[in-house]
Amino acid sequence: MTAPFPFSAIVGQDEMKLSMILTAIDPSIGGVLVFGDRGTGKSTAVRALAALLPPIKVVQGCPVNSASKADVPDWARGAGEDLVEVPTPVVDLPLGASEDRVTGALDIERALGAGERAFQPGLLARANRGYLYIDEVNLLEDHIVDLLLDVAQSGRNLVERDGLSISHPARFVLVGSGNPEEGELRPQLLDRFGLSVEVASPKDIDTRIEVVRRRDAYDNDNAAFMLRWQAEDAGVRDRILTARGALKKLKTPDSALRDVAELCLALGSDGLRGELTLLKAARAYAAWRNDTALTRSHIKHVSAMALRHRLRRDPLDEAGSGARVGRVVADVLG
Amino acid sequence: MTAPFPFSAIVGQDEMKLSMILTAIDPSIGGVLVFGDRGTGKSTAVRALAALLPPIKVVQGCPVNSASKADVPDWARGAGEDLVEVPTPVVDLPLGASEDRVTGALDIERALGAGERAFQPGLLARANRGYLYIDEVNLLEDHIVDLLLDVAQSGRNLVERDGLSISHPARFVLVGSGNPEEGELRPQLLDRFGLSVEVASPKDIDTRIEVVRRRDAYDNDNAAFMLRWQAEDAGVRDRILTARGALKKLKTPDSALRDVAELCLALGSDGLRGELTLLKAARAYAAWRNDTALTRSHIKHVSAMALRHRLRRDPLDEAGSGARVGRVVADVLG
Amino acid sequence: MTAPFPFSAIVGQDEMKLSMILTAIDPSIGGVLVFGDRGTGKSTAVRALAALLPPIKVVQGCPVNSASKADVPDWARGAGEDLVEVPTPVVDLPLGASEDRVTGALDIERALGAGERAFQPGLLARANRGYLYIDEVNLLEDHIVDLLLDVAQSGRNLVERDGLSISHPARFVLVGSGNPEEGELRPQLLDRFGLSVEVASPKDIDTRIEVVRRRDAYDNDNAAFMLRWQAEDAGVRDRILTARGALKKLKTPDSALRDVAELCLALGSDGLRGELTLLKAARAYAAWRNDTALTRSHIKHVSAMALRHRLRRDPLDEAGSGARVGRVVADVLG
Amino acid sequence: MTAPFPFSAIVGQDEMKLSMILTAIDPSIGGVLVFGDRGTGKSTAVRALAALLPPIKVVQGCPVNSASKADVPDWARGAGEDLVEVPTPVVDLPLGASEDRVTGALDIERALGAGERAFQPGLLARANRGYLYIDEVNLLEDHIVDLLLDVAQSGRNLVERDGLSISHPARFVLVGSGNPEEGELRPQLLDRFGLSVEVASPKDIDTRIEVVRRRDAYDNDNAAFMLRWQAEDAGVRDRILTARGALKKLKTPDSALRDVAELCLALGSDGLRGELTLLKAARAYAAWRNDTALTRSHIKHVSAMALRHRLRRDPLDEAGSGARVGRVVADVLG
Amino acid sequence: MTAPFPFSAIVGQDEMKLSMILTAIDPSIGGVLVFGDRGTGKSTAVRALAALLPPIKVVQGCPVNSASKADVPDWARGAGEDLVEVPTPVVDLPLGASEDRVTGALDIERALGAGERAFQPGLLARANRGYLYIDEVNLLEDHIVDLLLDVAQSGRNLVERDGLSISHPARFVLVGSGNPEEGELRPQLLDRFGLSVEVASPKDIDTRIEVVRRRDAYDNDNAAFMLRWQAEDAGVRDRILTARGALKKLKTPDSALRDVAELCLALGSDGLRGELTLLKAARAYAAWRNDTALTRSHIKHVSAMALRHRLRRDPLDEAGSGARVGRVVADVLG
Amino acid sequence: MTAPFPFSAIVGQDEMKLSMILTAIDPSIGGVLVFGDRGTGKSTAVRALAALLPPIKVVQGCPVNSASKADVPDWARGAGEDLVEVPTPVVDLPLGASEDRVTGALDIERALGAGERAFQPGLLARANRGYLYIDEVNLLEDHIVDLLLDVAQSGRNLVERDGLSISHPARFVLVGSGNPEEGELRPQLLDRFGLSVEVASPKDIDTRIEVVRRRDAYDNDNAAFMLRWQAEDAGVRDRILTARGALKKLKTPDSALRDVAELCLALGSDGLRGELTLLKAARAYAAWRNDTALTRSHIKHVSAMALRHRLRRDPLDEAGSGARVGRVVADVLG
Repeated sequence: MTAPFPFSAIVGQDEMKLSMILTAIDPSIGGVLVFGDRGTGKSTAVRALAALLPPIKVVQGCPVNSASKADVPDWARGAGEDLVEVPTPVVDLPLGASEDRVTGALDIERALGAGERAFQPGLLARANRGYLYIDEVNLLEDHIVDLLLDVAQSGRNLVERDGLSISHPARFVLVGSGNPEEGELRPQLLDRFGLSVEVASPKDIDTRIEVVRRRDAYDNDNAAFMLRWQAEDAGVRDRILTARGALKKLKTPDSALRDVAELCLALGSDGLRGELTLLKAARAYAAWRNDTALTRSHIKHVSAMALRHRLRRDPLDEAGSGARVGRVVADVLG
Repeated sequence: MTAPFPFSAIVGQDEMKLSMILTAIDPSIGGVLVFGDRGTGKSTAVRALAALLPPIKVVQGCPVNSASKADVPDWARGAGEDLVEVPTPVVDLPLGASEDRVTGALDIERALGAGERAFQPGLLARANRGYLYIDEVNLLEDHIVDLLLDVAQSGRNLVERDGLSISHPARFVLVGSGNPEEGELRPQLLDRFGLSVEVASPKDIDTRIEVVRRRDAYDNDNAAFMLRWQAEDAGVRDRILTARGALKKLKTPDSALRDVAELCLALGSDGLRGELTLLKAARAYAAWRNDTALTRSHIKHVSAMALRHRLRRDPLDEAGSGARVGRVVADVLG
Repeated sequence: MTAPFPFSAIVGQDEMKLSMILTAIDPSIGGVLVFGDRGTGKSTAVRALAALLPPIKVVQGCPVNSASKADVPDWARGAGEDLVEVPTPVVDLPLGASEDRVTGALDIERALGAGERAFQPGLLARANRGYLYIDEVNLLEDHIVDLLLDVAQSGRNLVERDGLSISHPARFVLVGSGNPEEGELRPQLLDRFGLSVEVASPKDIDTRIEVVRRRDAYDNDNAAFMLRWQAEDAGVRDRILTARGALKKLKTPDSALRDVAELCLALGSDGLRGELTLLKAARAYAAWRNDTALTRSHIKHVSAMALRHRLRRDPLDEAGSGARVGRVVADVLG
Repeated sequence: MTAPFPFSAIVGQDEMKLSMILTAIDPSIGGVLVFGDRGTGKSTAVRALAALLPPIKVVQGCPVNSASKADVPDWARGAGEDLVEVPTPVVDLPLGASEDRVTGALDIERALGAGERAFQPGLLARANRGYLYIDEVNLLEDHIVDLLLDVAQSGRNLVERDGLSISHPARFVLVGSGNPEEGELRPQLLDRFGLSVEVASPKDIDTRIEVVRRRDAYDNDNAAFMLRWQAEDAGVRDRILTARGALKKLKTPDSALRDVAELCLALGSDGLRGELTLLKAARAYAAWRNDTALTRSHIKHVSAMALRHRLRRDPLDEAGSGARVGRVVADVLG
Repeated sequence: MTAPFPFSAIVGQDEMKLSMILTAIDPSIGGVLVFGDRGTGKSTAVRALAALLPPIKVVQGCPVNSASKADVPDWARGAGEDLVEVPTPVVDLPLGASEDRVTGALDIERALGAGERAFQPGLLARANRGYLYIDEVNLLEDHIVDLLLDVAQSGRNLVERDGLSISHPARFVLVGSGNPEEGELRPQLLDRFGLSVEVASPKDIDTRIEVVRRRDAYDNDNAAFMLRWQAEDAGVRDRILTARGALKKLKTPDSALRDVAELCLALGSDGLRGELTLLKAARAYAAWRNDTALTRSHIKHVSAMALRHRLRRDPLDEAGSGARVGRVVADVLG
Repeated sequence: MTAPFPFSAIVGQDEMKLSMILTAIDPSIGGVLVFGDRGTGKSTAVRALAALLPPIKVVQGCPVNSASKADVPDWARGAGEDLVEVPTPVVDLPLGASEDRVTGALDIERALGAGERAFQPGLLARANRGYLYIDEVNLLEDHIVDLLLDVAQSGRNLVERDGLSISHPARFVLVGSGNPEEGELRPQLLDRFGLSVEVASPKDIDTRIEVVRRRDAYDNDNAAFMLRWQAEDAGVRDRILTARGALKKLKTPDSALRDVAELCLALGSDGLRGELTLLKAARAYAAWRNDTALTRSHIKHVSAMALRHRLRRDPLDEAGSGARVGRVVADVLG
């Protein structure tokens, strides 16, 4: 298996890349929704970011990637004694996956065979400490999306069916891609994603040439290409790790709270998830920028990705919700 | 697992909080329906109220949280000898849960394996003596809602299928949230909920700031925050316990019955569940207020939450059913 | 479990109560359909009537409530030797019940386990010698309603599936409630119910107060309330038992047959079930009135409940089918 | 179980009764479709005719009612040695019956238990040598109706599924009732029924009184009523048996063939089943009339029942297809 | 079981009969679609043709009718040693048949019982070396029709499911009947049938009399009737066998290829199956006519049956596709 | 089994043939979609190309056609020791195939029998190192198409269900045919096919004659016909093998990247798969042409097949997307 495309070698798409970096710094921001054209590298970016992060240490054979022998769930079979390093997991959730396959389920076969009530872990177990990627999340059934968002938020997967009462850690960042032309998520579900970004094919000829050139080099001259980008990826990784550490010490002035609240009120975003997410994203951005205090400019920079999916639809506003956020930010925050 | 957000620290949303308190004082009032915007803390409030109530004593390992060894159903396996204290249970009913999972069902596996006809308890068993929370109850199938309301009213779950004839206590308060824009419950089902309240995001900037500030403190400085609100929550708990005791002794003058009947007749609410629920809710409110007799002002205070979901829809009345109740209350009771 | 609300304590709703009394006197009249508002005590009335009737003697543990050891079906397991008294059974048919659950089915588990072809009785077995209550019968699937009406009419449940050829007595009175606004039964099915009545919330303030007062006393002062109504219920029971005995001896003059036929012809009711049911209902009413011969006034009194659900719909006649029956009765019988 | 209502005691409905008699004389005429109002005694008539016919001799316990030990299928279990007399079977096909239940199927249970591939006979087995009655045949699924008509025509039920290759005799007369207002059979299926008749509630007051009087006597004075009609039923039975014998010897002049063909051509009935059925029905009618040769008057008498369901629908002709047949008969045959 | 109606005794319907004869001469022409009125003897004709063909020799008990012991598939159980003569098989494909039943499937029962992975052959196995008849093929599901056409074309049934990888010969002529008024086949499927014919009830009185007379004789005087037509059927059989032999030696001039191509081009029939089928059908017809070379008149004679179902629908052309073929044939070939 | 029709003997259809050749030279181009009329030899061409390629060496009995003993997956049973030569596999994906059948699944039977968790490989295993052909891909369910494209792109089939975690190589070229009149693929899926071509019946009389002549010769004089085309097929094979070797050494000037990017930008094709595929296809074409450097003329030659399915639909442009590509190519590249 060849290594994923380097994160740093992705041309443009800055908002998408930043959104992923922010959730790598503070996973409690919640999942990321990526809207936009096909073929713009959404899946590539998730894999690239995961590959860039330092490998994680896991108990060998542990189905939930436990960090220590003590954390291995008692239902887990096959977990060994040693710690091994593995890449940050990226799990794909296929279209049409059943709830059983997602959450895990009773191991019917062992129940019938050995007469044991064993748990068969699912995709959520494998995604623990990593990323769960859903291509075209708007085509998933509502109750699966609901379940994924519940688990992503609580960090635990609780399975209570078929006489099982199993729970295991399932901390992951949910990344969903969607094409708004093919069906929309209900507002209830949209609101539970942390950030959303819009991507599009570059319209500039030299950018497009550069994208193709890099991809072609990756395909046809892989070793040299990976070497070329190694250092830049290492730089991003170091910056993320530093930002994670700095986040706790970051100062949040009262004026920032007021900015956030005024912005959301002016935008008419329902509920209060908007405020909280914007606050967290702005802090993560400040830490990424290596700043020591949260300022209005941090808030402005991430307001579109934190809020655009929480607005009520306005069929008369053709500029899109991102532009509406921008206008209101300019009005309210100057 | 961190403790739930403190009930007292919820900013505003007084009607929702009161409705939950009233059903905690007199569970025979029936379930609560909460309508309104996403992200307004509906789920938070249920968890908070349950966490505020005193822990319940249960036989260790009893699947229906029995209060004494004598109450443990004969089908229950794994129940121990000792009483232990556990928090008041809050059970989430997931979207798309099957009837089997809700009511419990034959334990197929044991039937096939050991040849025993064993009962596998469901979510209703776990909710006994606590709360059953249904997010977006309007998306559930009718026959599940019907079943939940039947059990909630009778306090027993009767399972007669697959050769089973099992019954167990299932006393719980049903709390359902719903967004009226996404589909409505049939009037037949609406009428069987005791109370209904409407919630909305606060429109006031300082309130919003306060909500975010508290939530942020809960997230980032949890220990200090919980300590800060401990005493206020204890106060609410004591008041609820006192009110429960006072309820039996509360006086109900004949004029109160007449007020209740005139109000319902003027509102044209079908059936007689409206009168009964309004009477019970008003009494619980009087007990909560520490009053010794039911008065017209108690009735007025809770009339909207007891009646608004029982009115026939009036498409010409844009003010909503809550406002209609208010106008008629003013007309009839002054 | 508390005893049901007393039948005599039900305020008003005379037509509904009479219809149930008549089928208690002569169950061959067939089932009763109750149309009307929610919360008007339909379910309460069925339970109340059953509780008022004398307990039945059954072989202990017999799944079809057999009256003597000789009547116990050979497939019944667990039936003991002794006769015990049990209340007249009232079985609820839940929305969404499968045909298997209604009729009984092969006991899959025992078939797989012990290799026996055993019958697992269903709701129809439990309803034998009692009442089967269906809330919102208009929401049931047609083939289930069809099956219920077949069994109710023949008094036997015949199960021929899965290699079973089982039959058992299933004599019960079918009571269905329905809200015409939520879907209608096909005329074919309507016609097979014996009687139909319409109920509505009382429009009179003192009646409503009385309803709430009684219900409240039943809830909060149960023992005294039950005692208060004991004698009246005993009176109704004795009158029903007397009427059952008198029915055989009741005289039916030829003029009554002619009245019945002319009425049905004038109403244009399809088929001849109308005449037969009206005749039976009028006789049961005469017996209930303690009269010795059937007269025109008996026929007039029960004509609406026997015929209103057999008329073709007339979209121009807003007064409802009950009123149409009344007008024609006045025209034809004076 | 009480005996069915006597065939002779059915008031009026001459066309329906004649159609059943004709198929009793010559079952190769095919099934009978009865269209019309509910409550007009369709089911009563089938049961009555079957009860009137002489009992059949069958090998005790034989699942297909074999006439002699030699005819018992090799897969039949439980068949004894002796011949016993049983009434002509009438089997009801319930709405929603599965194909397995109709045709019989693999006995899953024995296959799993004893490891034998055994056949579990279905409703078609039980109907052999009798009647299969389908209430509301228009509500059955097409492929079941198709299957029933195939078997009814061939006289054998061939089951080739699940590794079974079983065939057994299934000679029966199919009687279906239908209400054209509730859905229509496809012309392809209509054409495969032999005869069709229309029934309606009598419009004449004395007839209606007589119907009710007789039904009432049947219900309340059963023994005397059955005795009263015994002789008339015996007369009908004898006439049917005589006619069966006479059928072979009946003369069919060439002119009758021409009459039949001209009639069908003039009516534009598709296909040639019309001619054949009309010919057979006219012959059976001649035999029933105890005539020795087929004449034009016999053809005229049964032409409506043989042809009305084979006409193309003419939405402009409100008089119904029966009347269209009548007009053309008058034109063509005078 | 009585023998089928004699092929030669079918009155008229020359095109249908010829189409069946041609596929009996050269089965590689492909299936026949018969469109038209009900009751026009479509099913009768298939059975008649099969009965007319010489019996085939098969290994006794072989589930695919193998011609020699060497051809018996290794999965076949129950095949004996001897060759026996059986009639050419005609298998009916019932409406609603599952894919398992058609292709054969894993023998679940033996798999569970004896633990063997055995193949349970389906209808395609039984049809080998014979005819598969589908009444109302337009009502079958697309993927079944697709599968049938694949197998019919390749002559082998390949089953790869459930761990099976079984293949067996399945050479048969597919005959489907359909009523265009009840739903149409997709053009993709139509194109894969070799020939199509249209049948209608005769409009001529003497023909109709003759049809009824013969059918009546077949029913009532079977032995004499069969004898009467024996020689004619033998003549048809001999001619088919002779034509089969002559087909290889038949000359095909280049001008015939050009005629065929020009005809299809002028008709605008998509794809090239039209040309190939027309060529084959014309050759089979020439052989049937005992001619030694293919001529334009042979092509003209069979062009309608080979091409009419391959035209694009022309809603303005009410004359039907058969007439369109005729006009173009006259234009192009004179 | 007769050998497939020779690739070289296919008359015309140059674009379809070239597209298949290009993916045989560089399978990373991705699958081919063939749109067009029925009966134009789509399936024939795939089989012909596979038959023309040199046989592959596989471990005998290996279910994924492994090239050496070391590559045989550990779950594979029945794989022998020896290498054998087999034709390049062509696997048909039948309409209505389940996901289990495509990907492989748990071998239920062995799990139940021997208690082993064994993998039952599916169609993707059999297609490894060959072709997967889907007739009417537009009729497949989206999630199956999605899955096929995922596997085709990654070259591995990963099955994680039922407690299995199996992966095996599945490198194949996906060829799908579709009729745009019968339903369209979603743009998301279209974009993931590498190339697309349009085929139509030839409109030229001599071409059609030649097609029929060759097909007829293939059917009726197979041996001579195959011999006739052997050398030409060998020539194509050699050229493909040579081109595969030359591909790595081919020069790609910067101007080619710019041409590709300008073309895609001008066409407004979403995403960047268009550029990459066009680049690869042009290189494969250059290698096929035996040229040593990529030039603008190569790009122009394959631009329609690489891009036409990636354009947004333009309902006003009746000329079709192929023509739109042509016009833009002329504008941009001259």
